[in-house]
Amino acid sequence: MSDRVVVIGGGPAGIEAARTVADLGAPSLLVEQRERLGGTPIFARYAALTPYFADAEEAMDAMIAELRQRSLAEVRTETTVTGLSGEAGAFTVTLSSGEEVQAGAVIVATGFEHFDPGRERQIYNYYQYPDVMALQDLEAQLKEHNVVVPSTGRPPERICWVQCVGSRDRNIGNEWCSKVCCGIASKQAIEVRKLVPGCRAYIFYIDMRMYGYWETQLYWPAQEEHHVQYIKGIITEVLERGDRLIVRGEDTTMGRPLEVPMDMVVLSVGMEPSAGTRSMSQVLGVAQNKYGWIDTPNPPLDTVTTSRPGVFACGAALGPADLEDTISSAGAAASRAVALVRRGSLAAA
Amino acid sequence: MSDRVVVIGGGPAGIEAARTVADLGAPSLLVEQRERLGGTPIFARYAALTPYFADAEEAMDAMIAELRQRSLAEVRTETTVTGLSGEAGAFTVTLSSGEEVQAGAVIVATGFEHFDPGRERQIYNYYQYPDVMALQDLEAQLKEHNVVVPSTGRPPERICWVQCVGSRDRNIGNEWCSKVCCGIASKQAIEVRKLVPGCRAYIFYIDMRMYGYWETQLYWPAQEEHHVQYIKGIITEVLERGDRLIVRGEDTTMGRPLEVPMDMVVLSVGMEPSAGTRSMSQVLGVAQNKYGWIDTPNPPLDTVTTSRPGVFACGAALGPADLEDTISSAGAAASRAVALVRRGSLAAA
Repeated sequence: MSDRVVVIGGGPAGIEAARTVADLGAPSLLVEQRERLGGTPIFARYAALTPYFADAEEAMDAMIAELRQRSLAEVRTETTVTGLSGEAGAFTVTLSSGEEVQAGAVIVATGFEHFDPGRERQIYNYYQYPDVMALQDLEAQLKEHNVVVPSTGRPPERICWVQCVGSRDRNIGNEWCSKVCCGIASKQAIEVRKLVPGCRAYIFYIDMRMYGYWETQLYWPAQEEHHVQYIKGIITEVLERGDRLIVRGEDTTMGRPLEVPMDMVVLSVGMEPSAGTRSMSQVLGVAQNKYGWIDTPNPPLDTVTTSRPGVFACGAALGPADLEDTISSAGAAASRAVALVRRGSLAAA
Repeated sequence: MSDRVVVIGGGPAGIEAARTVADLGAPSLLVEQRERLGGTPIFARYAALTPYFADAEEAMDAMIAELRQRSLAEVRTETTVTGLSGEAGAFTVTLSSGEEVQAGAVIVATGFEHFDPGRERQIYNYYQYPDVMALQDLEAQLKEHNVVVPSTGRPPERICWVQCVGSRDRNIGNEWCSKVCCGIASKQAIEVRKLVPGCRAYIFYIDMRMYGYWETQLYWPAQEEHHVQYIKGIITEVLERGDRLIVRGEDTTMGRPLEVPMDMVVLSVGMEPSAGTRSMSQVLGVAQNKYGWIDTPNPPLDTVTTSRPGVFACGAALGPADLEDTISSAGAAASRAVALVRRGSLAAA
């Protein structure tokens, strides 16, 4: 029996889970494959977090500092989990270092990765044209407060976002809505309009999915204060003509073809299960859903328990999730894991 | 000092929070104003839960049975909280019975209520025409497996849902998207098509907000397997003509006026802060956001801590939430509350 909880993945979900486990009185061991904690917000160089525009690096640093204060929380970077044996309450977790760790429960927080917009279909010419970017490419520019057309180094006069790239797309098997891209594109459009006031900003969408408070935190201010133009339409290709990009498609509301010049095109790429989520599912022996994310067999009233007793999951390892979803499910996973190891301790006593 | 956690509200959020607190080794006291637990899914007579079509009553009964098994979890029905004094770790909670309870932390799980579609503007004639219903009215029919036009008692031949009633509506101050109504309307349309195969079903929407897996769990099956027709349009009034209802508005995609006969019109009413959420905010002295929901001052990386130290909130007391949001935030709130009372106990020891 062990009351330790091993948490896999050092992004927001894993950090929150590991801290919560420690706060609940159980030792946690956070295992991260990269050289530092922070996850996608750090490694994809996010600028401001959606929807509150908090600085991503500061926010993650604060989370990490909180975790570091917990004497019950241990962190192992540049380490992966290579094996899991035993059962709930008495697992042996094998690390890439060769070390074997006893644990009562495991929490998987291995997150998502951005859809690769060059995969399978090249209709947007992401790898061909330097001025076609993905959300995270623009985030990196926003982080430097320097939004420029890559091919010219000058500020853009016209920029657009193409929604649902790699989402809601049965042709490539990505049937889900990635949930956050409408919000992130709107957040970015506001930031671009602030940094480059002369730049016109357009968002081409199928449905604007600004749920809950995002409606008034992002969608309305984007239109009313920052004059971002939302156009319901399907973009079918991005071409180059002279020194500009041409975006072609159909304006659904006007019911007519659409062909507009742009300096920069930002592809609102969706979420896919990360390589870590896929590989950890195998290593840990937990079922994945048909898309590769980790399955929870008893939704909606149990959001974090996986198919293997004693293994829980949280954050975007479970599917598309915003930061608030991620933090809440991390807390829930930590509470389920600690409840389990506590029962083990009580039974042993 | 006390390690007890008082949980206010006996719906899904409160039940989950109270059970989790007990599983983490702290005593919980769940206080519910009604005569039994179950919350809105029970009292609004929900049929099947979104998106998995689980029977709402069975699901809630299972949650309640789980809670009842915990010796550390106490339940007080027909009781409200009337006062809170002291501070985090050492609160005195006054109950309507006159009893005073010591508690280290409080969790507010007082939820939402359905928007009253007769409020302020009567453009849909909800109280005037018996065949104009709200989502929960149809849920009650679905629960009885008996969908009929109220004025005739016969199965409908044509039914429609009007989305965003009481949501995304600045005129009435409800600026938020209620997040779940697109999914619930789609779920209901599938159920109606199964029960009354000859009935045509239409959903009038602004944006279909089927985030995450709802896209493929509900939106596509509704269209492809159950032939529900989705029409992007704004409904501006509902009239009576002969023995049918007339729905008038604009078909946004076709760019033309819309006037169609219906046997039943279902208003997809949004979420508003419940009376309990409003009154408990006052009693407990926690800040509300400008809409009346309970505020969390440090989003997105802390989803459950309120403005008053030691008081946490979860579920739809915080704003529009689906069941999975609710269950996750209940787990997160429980973990924050138990971490707090645990620190108190350690400090005292």
